[in-house]
Parts: sequence; structure tokens; C-alpha cells
Amino acid sequence: MEFRALRVDLSGMKFKEDIIDEKTIRRFLGGRGLGAYLALKEIPKDANPLGPENKLYILSGPVTGTAEGFEAGRTHFVAKSPLTGLIGESNMGGRFAPWMRKSGYDLIILEGKAPEPVWISVVNGEPEFHSAKELWGRGTHYTEKKIREAMKSPKEGAVIAIGPAGENFVKFASIIHAGGRAAGRTGLGAVMGSKNVKAIFVKGDREIPIADKERFMKGVKHLKEKIGSHPVRDSLNKYGTAVLVNIINQIGALPTKNWRKGTFEKAEEISGERLAEKYLVKTRGCWGCQIECGRLVKTESPQWGVPPGSKGPEYETIFALGSNLENSNLESIIRLNHILNDLGMDTISFGNTVAVLMELFERMNELPEDKRLELEKLLDGLRPIWGEPWPVVELAYKTAMRDGIGNVLAEGAVALAKSFGCDCVAHARGMELPAYDPRAIKAMALAYATANRGGCHLRAYAVSFEVLGIPVKTDPLEVNTEKAKMVKEQQDFFASIDSMIVCKFNTFMTPNPEDYVDLLAGATGWDITAEDIMEIGERIYNVERLFNVREGDPGDDLSKRVKEEPLPDGPAKGHTAKEALEKMLPAYYEARGWENGKPTKETLKRLGLEEFMYII
Amino acid sequence: MEFRALRVDLSGMKFKEDIIDEKTIRRFLGGRGLGAYLALKEIPKDANPLGPENKLYILSGPVTGTAEGFEAGRTHFVAKSPLTGLIGESNMGGRFAPWMRKSGYDLIILEGKAPEPVWISVVNGEPEFHSAKELWGRGTHYTEKKIREAMKSPKEGAVIAIGPAGENFVKFASIIHAGGRAAGRTGLGAVMGSKNVKAIFVKGDREIPIADKERFMKGVKHLKEKIGSHPVRDSLNKYGTAVLVNIINQIGALPTKNWRKGTFEKAEEISGERLAEKYLVKTRGCWGCQIECGRLVKTESPQWGVPPGSKGPEYETIFALGSNLENSNLESIIRLNHILNDLGMDTISFGNTVAVLMELFERMNELPEDKRLELEKLLDGLRPIWGEPWPVVELAYKTAMRDGIGNVLAEGAVALAKSFGCDCVAHARGMELPAYDPRAIKAMALAYATANRGGCHLRAYAVSFEVLGIPVKTDPLEVNTEKAKMVKEQQDFFASIDSMIVCKFNTFMTPNPEDYVDLLAGATGWDITAEDIMEIGERIYNVERLFNVREGDPGDDLSKRVKEEPLPDGPAKGHTAKEALEKMLPAYYEARGWENGKPTKETLKRLGLEEFMYII
Repeated sequence: MEFRALRVDLSGMKFKEDIIDEKTIRRFLGGRGLGAYLALKEIPKDANPLGPENKLYILSGPVTGTAEGFEAGRTHFVAKSPLTGLIGESNMGGRFAPWMRKSGYDLIILEGKAPEPVWISVVNGEPEFHSAKELWGRGTHYTEKKIREAMKSPKEGAVIAIGPAGENFVKFASIIHAGGRAAGRTGLGAVMGSKNVKAIFVKGDREIPIADKERFMKGVKHLKEKIGSHPVRDSLNKYGTAVLVNIINQIGALPTKNWRKGTFEKAEEISGERLAEKYLVKTRGCWGCQIECGRLVKTESPQWGVPPGSKGPEYETIFALGSNLENSNLESIIRLNHILNDLGMDTISFGNTVAVLMELFERMNELPEDKRLELEKLLDGLRPIWGEPWPVVELAYKTAMRDGIGNVLAEGAVALAKSFGCDCVAHARGMELPAYDPRAIKAMALAYATANRGGCHLRAYAVSFEVLGIPVKTDPLEVNTEKAKMVKEQQDFFASIDSMIVCKFNTFMTPNPEDYVDLLAGATGWDITAEDIMEIGERIYNVERLFNVREGDPGDDLSKRVKEEPLPDGPAKGHTAKEALEKMLPAYYEARGWENGKPTKETLKRLGLEEFMYII
Repeated sequence: MEFRALRVDLSGMKFKEDIIDEKTIRRFLGGRGLGAYLALKEIPKDANPLGPENKLYILSGPVTGTAEGFEAGRTHFVAKSPLTGLIGESNMGGRFAPWMRKSGYDLIILEGKAPEPVWISVVNGEPEFHSAKELWGRGTHYTEKKIREAMKSPKEGAVIAIGPAGENFVKFASIIHAGGRAAGRTGLGAVMGSKNVKAIFVKGDREIPIADKERFMKGVKHLKEKIGSHPVRDSLNKYGTAVLVNIINQIGALPTKNWRKGTFEKAEEISGERLAEKYLVKTRGCWGCQIECGRLVKTESPQWGVPPGSKGPEYETIFALGSNLENSNLESIIRLNHILNDLGMDTISFGNTVAVLMELFERMNELPEDKRLELEKLLDGLRPIWGEPWPVVELAYKTAMRDGIGNVLAEGAVALAKSFGCDCVAHARGMELPAYDPRAIKAMALAYATANRGGCHLRAYAVSFEVLGIPVKTDPLEVNTEKAKMVKEQQDFFASIDSMIVCKFNTFMTPNPEDYVDLLAGATGWDITAEDIMEIGERIYNVERLFNVREGDPGDDLSKRVKEEPLPDGPAKGHTAKEALEKMLPAYYEARGWENGKPTKETLKRLGLEEFMYII
């Protein structure tokens, strides 16, 4: 088991093959882990995230694209984030990584900066540059269409592309695949844009190696059966991730009106149930997936059209463009999601940023005279009012183009709030929070604060035990140190999951590292254990943290809005996230072997990370 | 009287002063005439309109900025048009040309192409380049704001700028000034964009020379008094150009639903009266204007905001985004006008192009399978339905960005219709027609067909006699050869008006060349007569025609929609424009001394244009 890397030297317009040796794979698996390790080694300290010295890693893992039925179609991206200045990484569904492996490469590394806009094709081990002059400025949907036409490949192969947002260095620009699969968070679309790379096409028929077919198939069968028969699978299939709208609203954790409420009275209207009932055409899975949480949707109004077979919005998007803007028009959310995918922007960061803008607009009279005039001038007539989806359409275009107010929005919610002197943004490490209010789900306070990439629900998804009862049900309003350990364990486990790579949703149904031992041992031929899987995860988490420490990590914290302002409504009325964070963080550090948010020497030694000792 | 020209060598990033001698000024006055003459001499045959070999002339005239009260604030632009491939020229209100003269130059000529985006400032004879890297991609409103900040000049001086449409070579991109004054037609914004020039700022306090002050002031006084006391002035002041909506609708000449009707049942809702009643804040004139037809407007709905003091839509814009799209939402027209100004696109061409798209969408089932699929794919979910303004907002952004369907719309209505095999566009010489149906106003058929820049109402405004009774009332449905002569006379007169430069609206109130003799003689010191003014105009009209002939003029004609398809409604029900055109064109040619649309040798000799004899 070794990995074939395609290094793309964009400054020199050259391709180079590279081999990642087995020892490294054994320590980091692939995907997120391998990306973090290479990023820490290869991206120089204090690199400009939008400079040629940054690198963008596009990764598969050892089980990617091997067999169907256990959700091994995802792709991981790693770079230094232009949004946070820290480790940037994002995991995307669809079928890119399987096709990348078939094209001959387990990972692609973009280095330097192309002198002119290009796109890259890799077909059966043959990489090629193409001019992207005609595609520059275009949306991702049009770009994908044009690239498939150019490659004469309407169905086979896979494309990733950036939109105008990535080209214009919007700090939360995404990388888009298949019309709506997104590597959304931490602004990696802007990194791709800064390298003058518009898109990548991969295709081929290289066979993906499996070391021990018998053991591997045993592992596949185990996952396939356990997942296939699980009620959570059926629920995700039936309602998609949007099934969470009603659930999270009921416990008062659905962020509403820029995190000033925890319940949305019109949640029902934007729920997964409503989506399934009125707009769902059919379900859609990633490569090799038997869950099929993806929604293909239609709309009916003339105003909010989407093409047939469009991707429906995820739960996070429904929060970001729905409840958090007090917008109950689900059709508008469907279209806005489509527009943001086309322009190539993260829905979570964009929605949060617009929410801050709406709050600024509502409270305009509280601004100092010069700031009020500046805001009015920048808005150029737009009226960002709670519940009104129309101005949001224009804000999306203006942000992607960086025109007027869009030039401020493009810097993200923290920068927007700061530039108008308003401490009204929910974030951690500079990244806007996703759809679970940590004041109402205490373990999420810790999960957000300690997530290396900033405010993220997917580094530890404490919602699974706090709300869904997986593997055990905890009281979401209780604060205890046991939860700190659970968050840590989940972070490590998920780091391995993101590195194999399989879909995190598997962990609802096959929630133990043991579930993956045969799969991984079979695919790689390694004598691997459940403990190894956890240790690798922990190693990865520490490498990511080391990246942050080296770049001047701001520390494990939450912003004032959720940390100090009490929720005014719902079951968590009166709660803040302060106590949870303060009580659980020390226990978390202890479990990690960290001091003040930094790995100790002992910890690094234990994890075999001596080479990075210089950082701490 | 000589003119100081600033030649901007963008390829070499150098400035050069040039003197236009009195003899030339005497023959072409300035503005449109001088621009046409220089363009014909200096732009090589078959030049690529978007190549460095094209030139953009920005011109004032001998009375520009001299005194107030007779509307001498306008600016003229000339280049080869990317929309038609013929003579491109456009006349803009506001206060740019007066400031340009004060800055030290009577005209500015953009030549070549800058290696990087730049903007140019000219202050008291000192021109300077500035990097426009930070402004590239931005809208005109934001650009003007930023340039005024950079020049520390919030009020003094004037800015012209292009938006993303000009940068992206939208074939009908405009040049915008003061937030809403537009050199709209023939796509000169794209020419400016092709030269990598984002904006120009001018300011200074050079005194503008007057040769014979006494005679000049006599001329000023004459105009001032006649115009100031005229009822048309009051009507334009009260309702703006939009006063025409009801008037033109009543005679069945208000183009509706992509020129498939001549009346709009909801005309009242988008009328000048409604605009004055509900949205007008105050009137606004150009430099030195006592008419003040400009509208400063407000809106109230959250969806259709505009900043305080925004320019209201002109009659042409109301037709293009209103009746022709069956859109009766006046607030939406106000906002769309604002957006199009910001993006830098001509409202008339854009509206016509969207109207064609709406017709294609309505009649989608008539398209061949492959064309239908292509259209669906390009629309990417947008539903351009009659009367729905929302999709038009997105279409505006997509056109400026050239994304998806926008990349087709950006080529103009003729190209759009052609690419879907539909003969459904109202145009002349490839330029979309403005707001007067020539089937219901017969002399407009001739005016459109013979306008050198393509479908234009301002080269001869036959509406003035056919509808408004200025100077005499004719029957708009009658076809006769007298009208052909009137069109020719108006074209010549207007060519001089655009070259002096004064506002064409003056000619409603001071409709005779005699009215301008003292003014012009006083300003220049020439012994000039009314006959001279008409002869100069005729010379200019012939020079423009020579430009077209050299570039392969398609001839004096109208497209099928208005020439052959009868109007189904209103007072002109059953009428086409065919008979009018066929009967009046020979008389027009005779009056002009042209054969088959080309000046004869005798005519060129008579007008002193021997140097261009090689063209015919």
C-alpha cells in the first residue's frame, strides 16, 4: 500500500509523480490525515493562504472507491485556510475521489500559481493542462457542463470546479462537484482560485488495489448489513439531513435570527418532512452509497426555479438561509442553495454573514454616523430584512463579485461584524458556527471550541449522543467531564473516518472503530486493530493542532454571542455556553495530553510526532 | 477655436497632447461629428471592436460647459461598435464633458490596451494612471465611490466608469457616470473594458474660451428664454421622459411582450404620472440645465430598494424592462434600472434581449429537441416568464458575468435569437429597437432603418412630428415622401446638436437651426449660418455612413418582426412597417444624394469629403 500523488507545479506548468510511502499511509491512512501531515510538512510557516506558497491537497483514502455499500465515495481537501489562517480542510460527497483513483492518482497536489487560468484533466495517468480563459468568471454549473463537453464525457469521470467566488478570493469560497456536492468550509475554493485553477477532471479505469480480498469483503459485508438494516439509514434516506430541522428546533437549538433565538416558529415550513412532501423528486447517493441522503428536488414557483435533478439543501443550509435569516420560504432556500453552489460559496458561512448584515441593518440607528453612512453607501439600495429572501439573491451575486457590500461580506462574518464595530457573530477560530446552538447542546460548545478548523459540527458531532442517543443518550443541558472525553474520542474516531475515507453517517450505524477493522486490514494488508484506528485519529488531530499552533492559534474558545448572551427562548432559555466550555475544557485537555491547547512533548512522543517537536 | 486632445496610449502607458485644428472643428463642430471623423480616419478598416486597434473618443463640443440654461452638459462617445461592427456612438447626460474641458482637454482618446487594469485621472492638465486592480470586477456605483475617495473629491469633478459587463465584453455594455447617467447604446462600455480602462476622473479650473462674449450671451439668452417658458419644458420637468408611456400606449406604439403587441393594458401602472406620484423625490438636471428631466426616486418595498437620490428610469427603460416584458411592477423597474447601471449595461438592449428569451421560454416546445435541452441547461433553473421581474435580476447579474444563459444574452438579442433559430427580434443593423413601434409611427420605420448606429430613436426623432406635433403634427399612420425629407432634415440637425453639444430636448422648444446661430457664432467666433449648421450635420451623417459602408454595412432595413408581422392590437392594428419603409426609402435617398444607401461622389464632393472617396 503506497499512494501515487500527482504534484501539479502550476508556476512551472509541469506535472510530477510522487510516491507516498507505506509508512506514512500507515500513520495517517490517507484523506484528511495524510493531507494534514503533508500540509504541516510542506506549507511554510506564515504562508499567505492565497499565495503560491500555499498548497491544495485533494485526497482519497485507502478504501475510497473500492467497493459499494459502505459509503466510500468521498473526497478530502486540505490547505491553509484563507478564512481562519489555520488548518483548512473540507470533506465532500459525490464521486470525485473514486474517479481520481481510477485516473491513476490517489491524491493531487496543487502547488504554486499558474500564469494564466487553467483547468486540468487526468485520464488514465495522463495529466494535461487546458486554458480556462473561456471559463474564468463562469459559475460551476456552466463550467462542469463545458468541461464535460470538452472531454466528450457526459457521464463518466468527475469534475470539481470553483465559481466566481473562488476566483475573487471570497474567504468562504467552496469547491463544487456534480452540481451541488461541496467542499464548503474554510474557503478552499479561494485557494484553488489563487492558483488560477478553475477545474479538474478525472477519469480512467485503473483497478484499485485490495491487499486481502477475503478479509476486505468480510469487512464490507459487515458494514453493508449493519448499515442497510438500520432505522437511521431509512430516516436519512427518507428526509435527508433536513430531518434535523424539527428535532433541533424542538430542543431549542435551531439558531434563529443571527443566533438571537434557539427556536423558529416556522421551522415546520422548512423541515425535511416538508421538503420530502412537496419538493423531493428522488433520493441520490454518492459513489457506492446505500444511504442516499441526497435530495433531488423540484420547485414550482416562477421565481425560485431550479433545473430538474437539482440537489436539495442540507440541514445546515436550511438553517443558514432559513431560520437564521427568519426565512420560511423553502423554495427560496432551494434556489439560493443552487445559486451558492453555482457561484461556489459555502452556504453556512454565507448565511451567517448575511445574518450579521441583517442585524446590522436592523440596528442601523445604533451605529456611529460615519459607519451608518458607510453601510448605506455599500448596500447601494439593498434592504437586507429578516425573512426576505430576495435581497439575499443579490447579496450572493455581489459577494461572489465582491461588489459594494459584497466586498465586505466576502471577508466573512467576523470581518463584517468587526468593520462595523458589532460583536454579533457566532464563531469559533474565525469560522462561522453551523446549525446547533451550543447553549442548548452543551457538548457542542466544546466540540466547536476545540475543532481545529474552527466552528464545525463534523469534527465531533456531539449531537449524536446529546440529541440522537447514539451510542447513548445524554442530557444536552448537563455539563460534565464525561462528555469532554466523549468529544475527544469522537474527534479521534472521525479523523480516521475522514482519512479512510468513509462517510461520517456510517458512524450512526456502525459507531465503533471495531466495525472498520476488517475493512481497513483487508484493503491495506496491515495487521490493524481498533486501537490503531483510534490512535491514528488522535495523531491526525494533533497534527492539525500543531499546524494551528505554528500559525498562531487563537485558542479553544467561542465568541461572545453564544458564550455570554443567554438564549431567550425554548428549553435552553437563559443558558449560555460559558459554563460548559469552562468546565469541560480542562477535562478535555487532560484526556488529550495537552496543556493550554497545545500538545505536550510526551503526547507528541507517544504519537510518534517527534519531528514536529519544534513547534511547541 | 482649436481643440486640445489627450491621447492615451494605453499599450505604451503614455500620454500625448494633440491639437485638433480649427479647420476640422469648423467642419465637424466637436462631439459626435468630430468623433465620427476621427474614427473614420484613425480606426483601421476591419478593426476588431474589442482589439487594441479600436479607439474610444470621449468628446465635448464648442459650447460644452460654457454657460448655464441651455443644456450644454452632455458628453459624446465614439468607437467602432462591438454590437454592430459599425459606427458606435452614444451621448450621455450629466456633467462629465464640462469637467473634462475644465481639466484641460476638450476630448480624450483611448488607444491601444493597457497591460493591466487602470483608471485615469486628469486634474488641471495633469493626466495620471492608477492601478484598477482593486476595482476590476466591481460595479460602477462602488467604483465611483472609491475613485472619489482616492481623489479626495466627494463633489467636484466627474467620473465615468464601466461595470463588470464592460470588463466581460457584454456587447451592449454601457459607460456610466454619476450613478445613472449612461452612454448606453452600441456597447462602448465593452470597448473601454477591452482597453483595460475601468474609469476616468476629470477635474480642474481651466476657463473655457468664448470668442465673442456678447454675441454668445445673446444666443444663450435666446435659448434660455425660449426654453424656460415652454410648456414642453414643464412637462419634461414634471414627469420626465416617462411622460411618454401613456401617450405612446394610446396610439398603440408601446412595444409590449417582445414587440408582439402595441399596447400594454397596465401602462398606467408604469407611467410617468405614476412615477411622479409615488416615487419621485425631486427632479435633477445635467450641468447647466433648466429642464431637469432627471428623476431622483425612492422605493418602499423591501425587495426593490434603491439608495436615496437614485436616478429613476427613463421612458426607454420603462418600455424595455416593463411593457416589453409585460412587467407592471414599477418598483422592480426602478431597482432593475439601478442594477443595470451598476453592472454597466444598456437597459434597452438588455430588455429586448430578455424579451426574446422570454419568448423562447414561452415557446420552448417549438424548439428542436437539442436546442430545447441546450436552453434548459443554460437557464440552470431560471424561469423567464412574462411579467415576472425576479428572474430578470438574476439574468442581469448572469449577463454581466457571462455565466450560463448570460453568456448568450451578452451577445445581444440578435445573436440570442439566431442561436435558437428564432426570427423574433426587433432590430435594425443588429441593434435592438427602442420604445416606439414603427408599425404605428410610420416615419420611425425610416428613422430606425437609416440610423447609422442601428435601431435608434435619437438620430431622427420622428415621434416629435408624428406624435407630439413638433414642429407640425403629421398623421403617424400615413406614409408619404414628405416625411422622408423631414427624417433626413432631423438627422442632419440632430447630428449638429450632438456635436455642439447641446441636449436634444432643446429641439422641442428651439426647433430651428437659426436658434443656435448666435450661440455657436459667439462661442467660436465663426461667421456661421443656419445653413452651415445643417450642412455640418449632413457632413457628419455622411461620414458615419461612410464608416458603415467601409465596414460592410448591411443596409437600411428593419427586421421581420416589425417589417412583416402585423400589429394585432391598438390603433395600428393590422399594420406592418414594410410599406412605409419601401415607399419612403427612395425619397430619402434622393434627398440625401445617396444611391443604394451609399453617398454618391457628387454628394461627397458637395460636403467636402473627397478624402473618403476611396470608400464608395
